Amino acid sequence: MIQANARAVFNPEGPFQLTTIERRDLQPHDVLIEIKYAGICHSDIHTARGEWGEVQYPLVPGHEIAGIVTQIGSEVTKFAVGDRVGVGCMVDSCGECDSCRNGDEQYCLNGNVGTYAAIDKYGQYTQGGYSTHIVVTEGFVVRIPDSIPLDKAAPLLCAGITTYSPLRHWGAAPGKKVAVVGMGGLGHMAVKLAHAMGAEVTVLSQTLKKKEDGLRLGADHYYATSDPETFEKLASSFDLIVNTVSAKIDLNAYLSLLAVDGTMVNVGAPPEPMPVQVFSLIPYRRSFAGSVIGSIRETQEMLDFCAEHGVAPEIEVISANLIDEAWERVLASDVRYRFVIDISTMENE
Amino acid sequence: MIQANARAVFNPEGPFQLTTIERRDLQPHDVLIEIKYAGICHSDIHTARGEWGEVQYPLVPGHEIAGIVTQIGSEVTKFAVGDRVGVGCMVDSCGECDSCRNGDEQYCLNGNVGTYAAIDKYGQYTQGGYSTHIVVTEGFVVRIPDSIPLDKAAPLLCAGITTYSPLRHWGAAPGKKVAVVGMGGLGHMAVKLAHAMGAEVTVLSQTLKKKEDGLRLGADHYYATSDPETFEKLASSFDLIVNTVSAKIDLNAYLSLLAVDGTMVNVGAPPEPMPVQVFSLIPYRRSFAGSVIGSIRETQEMLDFCAEHGVAPEIEVISANLIDEAWERVLASDVRYRFVIDISTMENE
Repeated sequence: MIQANARAVFNPEGPFQLTTIERRDLQPHDVLIEIKYAGICHSDIHTARGEWGEVQYPLVPGHEIAGIVTQIGSEVTKFAVGDRVGVGCMVDSCGECDSCRNGDEQYCLNGNVGTYAAIDKYGQYTQGGYSTHIVVTEGFVVRIPDSIPLDKAAPLLCAGITTYSPLRHWGAAPGKKVAVVGMGGLGHMAVKLAHAMGAEVTVLSQTLKKKEDGLRLGADHYYATSDPETFEKLASSFDLIVNTVSAKIDLNAYLSLLAVDGTMVNVGAPPEPMPVQVFSLIPYRRSFAGSVIGSIRETQEMLDFCAEHGVAPEIEVISANLIDEAWERVLASDVRYRFVIDISTMENE
Repeated sequence: MIQANARAVFNPEGPFQLTTIERRDLQPHDVLIEIKYAGICHSDIHTARGEWGEVQYPLVPGHEIAGIVTQIGSEVTKFAVGDRVGVGCMVDSCGECDSCRNGDEQYCLNGNVGTYAAIDKYGQYTQGGYSTHIVVTEGFVVRIPDSIPLDKAAPLLCAGITTYSPLRHWGAAPGKKVAVVGMGGLGHMAVKLAHAMGAEVTVLSQTLKKKEDGLRLGADHYYATSDPETFEKLASSFDLIVNTVSAKIDLNAYLSLLAVDGTMVNVGAPPEPMPVQVFSLIPYRRSFAGSVIGSIRETQEMLDFCAEHGVAPEIEVISANLIDEAWERVLASDVRYRFVIDISTMENE
């Protein structure tokens, strides 16, 4: 077994404590990664607090992982020691179902293996990226292009791919009007990516507080959803709406903003159901959809796209002893726009 | 003005009475149609009873119209006297918006003109097909292939196109699994059309009462939705679900039947909103959509497809003096599967 230092919570309330976890010995297709940076995702908080179902403790969150390969298994062909690599929200899948065979591991019919709080095929409870090392099968590791600094690469592994995938799937491109609901960790990436894809981008945020940022990051327009006139003015105008907000919203108001054949896709999900008025969909053949992360192939494509177009998240790098504080700030939406833990500070007091 | 006999309701409660209505004099692009048959659609009842908004009386319903051209305007090029023709749910649209220019008149951004209970560009209140004659601009008239009898052609103009359009749009074809929810006027057409398109067809009906019919009409499988095991057995299995039921259903249960990238499309709409659990959509990139009728071009394509594949509705032809009774039977789901009024009986006592 390989020992790794980690920051873990030992109960739903926290706080984080420094601890030691074990990573499996390298199997033929495994790579050992020395983690350099790990992003903080809102879903880390939901999961660790047991809000999305029961979990085991101690729990080490983190599924936005960037680091360096320091050892490889005997049959690894995709990576060499020294490679700059990333790991996202999943570390394995069945490899045999239709989805896996189609290269859509995120939709594995037998359920993919989450990077933390899941049971892997060895029967071990997976632990995430708030730690110094991780062992992952090479098929679930991606290459980070040289032009992307590792700290900025980390959030691309969840916030990046989660927004890139639906933008690509539903055809964000020149001539298309894309709205992004919410200007948080996911939202600000959606703005940058949709802009880089050539779409006309509109941010729909509760207030105009982050308008200047939004326009600077690539939005063409910025509207406050607290202003009812916004919904009148933008009626039936978007080809695609990417909703990054996990709170309950007035879905029918947003659906009314879709043009003919438009789709609103949720990448976040409120725990409570939301009422849909079917008459909001029928007259213009509108769709309401959901999407989760992206495939490994698509994650690599996204990283290469980001390198090519100079797209990277806005981050605030923190020391590992400040994770609790950072979580509170995430919950208060007080982050522009993603916290990234500098793993070299793992043992700081 | 051209005089036509018609059956109209004079208030929300009915009953139907024989009356005379006026059709406009032929404009250069108009055709005068002698109506031979008119189908009875559930939405005739909703509209005439004011359940979908206020309407004017007397009101002549009917948007499944089949007849013969008896006169043409001076500039008509598409039709000649004697042609067998049909008219569906719309009789005009703006012709100038993006949807109309794309040939999607059903999604006219300025609102298409309904065949009845709408105001046309002449400022006249439109009256539908429960009458002996109608005047329609040639662009909204379709040709009925010789092999389709006029009585069977009538329901294709609404029930046919309403199900054909989403089946085509969402790719019903060999290798695809399509479920049809509801075995009524629309549902039985969806079964026949999806089968003719080569899809594997499953009917989801409340009970097994119409199972024999369903299998005879082209379904490969038939399940009762009153049996909870149905939802377990069919989990994540359909590429497309066409929901023809206008009543409120447990949407999340049905969404759970969609495979990866599957779509459930409603062609009927309950007046009340239905709660959607976003977690029903996200894991498999599922979509919930709505669709309304189809374009004129697509309606012609559907009629030609039906002729080529020998597809026609199951109908019960009635005399015009039995419309009230037929409506009651439609409301009681006591029809297999579409009533069609024989307009030659218009003046029967």
